[in-house]
Amino acid sequence: MIQFYSPDILTTLSLPPEESQHCVRVLRHKEGDEICVIDGLGNRYACRITEAYPRSVMVEIISETKIPDFWKVNITLAVAPTKNMDRLEWLTEKAVEYGINKIIPVICEHSERKVVKVDRLRKIAVSAMKQSLKASLPEIEESISFSTFLKNIQTDNGNSSGENPQKFMGYCDKAYPLKNLIAEYTPGRNVVILIGPEGDFSESEVSAAVEAGFIPVTFGESRFRTETAALASIAIIHFLNQQSSN
Amino acid sequence: MIQFYSPDILTTLSLPPEESQHCVRVLRHKEGDEICVIDGLGNRYACRITEAYPRSVMVEIISETKIPDFWKVNITLAVAPTKNMDRLEWLTEKAVEYGINKIIPVICEHSERKVVKVDRLRKIAVSAMKQSLKASLPEIEESISFSTFLKNIQTDNGNSSGENPQKFMGYCDKAYPLKNLIAEYTPGRNVVILIGPEGDFSESEVSAAVEAGFIPVTFGESRFRTETAALASIAIIHFLNQQSSN
Repeated sequence: MIQFYSPDILTTLSLPPEESQHCVRVLRHKEGDEICVIDGLGNRYACRITEAYPRSVMVEIISETKIPDFWKVNITLAVAPTKNMDRLEWLTEKAVEYGINKIIPVICEHSERKVVKVDRLRKIAVSAMKQSLKASLPEIEESISFSTFLKNIQTDNGNSSGENPQKFMGYCDKAYPLKNLIAEYTPGRNVVILIGPEGDFSESEVSAAVEAGFIPVTFGESRFRTETAALASIAIIHFLNQQSSN
Repeated sequence: MIQFYSPDILTTLSLPPEESQHCVRVLRHKEGDEICVIDGLGNRYACRITEAYPRSVMVEIISETKIPDFWKVNITLAVAPTKNMDRLEWLTEKAVEYGINKIIPVICEHSERKVVKVDRLRKIAVSAMKQSLKASLPEIEESISFSTFLKNIQTDNGNSSGENPQKFMGYCDKAYPLKNLIAEYTPGRNVVILIGPEGDFSESEVSAAVEAGFIPVTFGESRFRTETAALASIAIIHFLNQQSSN
């Protein structure tokens, strides 16, 4: 199944230029063909093409299906952007494939990368959403400083659901008891996961995060790269939730 | 901690050219410095540099430590190479970071890629082993056909330990009962995981694999790319084993 993405499908009854081109030029769809369109807000539409313009495919909607996220909790990943942008792009793709609600690039004291091209990450997220047959587009926020992140998280808890999430940070130091995310996470709870940069969090960042309620955890016995730690933590959240619903 | 890799450290008492260059030219190590060397066979050596030649660093061994794999089971991943080689390289890096014993590229009927540069994958595996502080290098086999893979697996069970592993294949079709790897895997058991190409297994491959004892499983409710499915399955094996040992 191929999904086309049109965030404003209900009002425009059309595909955006890039999707139109893919639909007509690459996949050679014609007037009368049925296609599947998602709006990134959790809805999937069966549509019939009324005009196959290569810059703006026009459609009529045949039927609409709600596609709720299959995971029942709100998962927010706050991650220091990797020095090598490829690694953050890869993480974005995989996080969306696994299933995630929000990604926040957080600039830390030891971050070598201070600038993130969020537009590119959003494109990757759209593509991964379509490919993995989801209908909701995760939010990818503009990058913020560590201190702003902590301030925001204490205000809105990292999600709009209002429910207090469990908060974890990937950090391992003998100053803090060694806890494993697998043992600490309670299935069914919303969660915010904070992953530091290649040079790790600074001491003052760690104590500020702990003060704000973040629990330092490991994800096993390996030393992981930033993006591997981030993906491992998302995997753990999903598997524990699947396990508890089995 | 930085680890240097020298598979023949015991007989040569030296680092290979590339590692020597990194040690002397990049990290500016000098005669008398202590460095850490792994042999890829599960041993870590504390060494002192006796001659800092940029093409061949000579060392004496101060002490030796056995570093057993922290995971207690034998994990074999048999995976159809992805069309885009980057994705297979990425998978190799992440699989080694998570922890794996053997990777077998398997050429399937629907594989678009029939040739794999195994040398490049081995280099990536070495680098990931060093970076993630392991001391054992996973085996990365030359690519083999699907039928040869099945024949071999029935002879040697995919590992040399002799113990009969659980065998799973990533496959989902209504002809087979829908099982989830999380529910099917028994912690403590050796395991062989078989992941198909972008175009999926052919019908005859599926029935041959099932005949050979492979259980078709899913890894959750997402539709995953080949490399995402492979990594998710390795993550599940590790987490279930960690969970059972907690």
